[in-house]
Amino acid sequence: MAEFIYGHWPIMEALRSGRRSFEQLLITETVDEKGLVAEIINAAQERNVPLRRVPRRIIDDLAGGANHQNMALRVGGYPYVDPEDILETARKRGEKPFILLLDLLKDPQNVGTLMRVADAVGVHGVIIQERRGVAITPAVSSASSGAVEHLQVAQVTNLVHTMRELKEQDVWMVGLDIGPNTPPIDKQDLNMSLGLVLGSEGEGMRRLVRDTCDLLFCLPMRGHVASLNVATVGSVALYAAWRARGWEGWAHAQTGR
Amino acid sequence: MAEFIYGHWPIMEALRSGRRSFEQLLITETVDEKGLVAEIINAAQERNVPLRRVPRRIIDDLAGGANHQNMALRVGGYPYVDPEDILETARKRGEKPFILLLDLLKDPQNVGTLMRVADAVGVHGVIIQERRGVAITPAVSSASSGAVEHLQVAQVTNLVHTMRELKEQDVWMVGLDIGPNTPPIDKQDLNMSLGLVLGSEGEGMRRLVRDTCDLLFCLPMRGHVASLNVATVGSVALYAAWRARGWEGWAHAQTGR
Repeated sequence: MAEFIYGHWPIMEALRSGRRSFEQLLITETVDEKGLVAEIINAAQERNVPLRRVPRRIIDDLAGGANHQNMALRVGGYPYVDPEDILETARKRGEKPFILLLDLLKDPQNVGTLMRVADAVGVHGVIIQERRGVAITPAVSSASSGAVEHLQVAQVTNLVHTMRELKEQDVWMVGLDIGPNTPPIDKQDLNMSLGLVLGSEGEGMRRLVRDTCDLLFCLPMRGHVASLNVATVGSVALYAAWRARGWEGWAHAQTGR
Repeated sequence: MAEFIYGHWPIMEALRSGRRSFEQLLITETVDEKGLVAEIINAAQERNVPLRRVPRRIIDDLAGGANHQNMALRVGGYPYVDPEDILETARKRGEKPFILLLDLLKDPQNVGTLMRVADAVGVHGVIIQERRGVAITPAVSSASSGAVEHLQVAQVTNLVHTMRELKEQDVWMVGLDIGPNTPPIDKQDLNMSLGLVLGSEGEGMRRLVRDTCDLLFCLPMRGHVASLNVATVGSVALYAAWRARGWEGWAHAQTGR
């Protein structure tokens, strides 16, 4: 199913990764073809994507009022993979599996932030549950700054079932949880075949998801405001896991953006 | 100067901390007095804050279009402290200073997220620069879920000057930086008298701020999207620092929210 992704980086990363079909690049009539905009237009032309200038209100409508930076790209639907593809990527890289699992997260901004961090720490893939949770919509692509265009994301019908299958393949399911008697995140060496499981905003993991975890950890808090956003908790946990792997795969050459 | 803070948690935390003067609680005509709303009204009554029912559009205006959850509280301006108060808090707690310094961050959402994490890890205070950077506005209080109402925040006219004064009191200035040849964040034991310095969105630290740091570290990244939001970077760094302190002050009793 075709959809419109919007904003400079989601469009640029979609063109770079080349995983979707590209139908048309829409740009507002007034925007200048310079800087990043010119780069995007070049990238689209190299891939023979037709360019069309349209009134701004058309892109306003397509982006549902979001900040589209004067651009929308009509593309094929998000290219989901299977969990098996994610494990295959780990094998190809010669690394122990490193997977993020999201249980019914609802907010595209949170999911986008987590996807961006998941990309930064080099997870082999992300697994989300179909229905009731968020899908990889253009809003998520935007919130991830385009990172989802490179990530492998599997959408499964039954997260618990998938967790059990991964456990059979020796991937440990480690859930981030709140509540008493849960040890802090640094109490276990996370340098292992890892599926990091995050629950939804407010509710946390569903009971069966929590019960399917091999280990539970919490992120300590000592402040007056007794909770943190799930995107913050997940970001800290993803970095704790990658740090435990000794920054595996880090080339130590960053560019600003 | 009076201002209006809005949203359930910012108002609740402001009333709880009791640091501002409270002038009037405004509630839309239609909202029911139950749950958290009832708690807030009770808390306001205990502090003799007059309650007034007003049409929704009035609170819409006062909140500048932000999500106000049908409530606004007219309060005195944010109660800034001095850097010396922050050091005094560390001494009273018998802890090595743990301070967050923000160099010209611009986005209230980023600053609010960082304040919420700063509260969660128990920093003794946050130091921001007056002018050009964001101040502690109602938007920041909202983005912090009210955490700023409990935090000690100092607003200084010259951040570099304040950094030098802190260094004279044996607080190490550690800057989070990108760029080659910067060691990763776990290369130094952060269990020390610490001022963690974050640069602004896009630009990073100003040159003189960077040069005033005793140490520079980076957060490694290996993904396709070669940057992370400063709120994410800062959150991971704050947790790395608190973890190095052995979760000092953690009571291990969380409540959900």
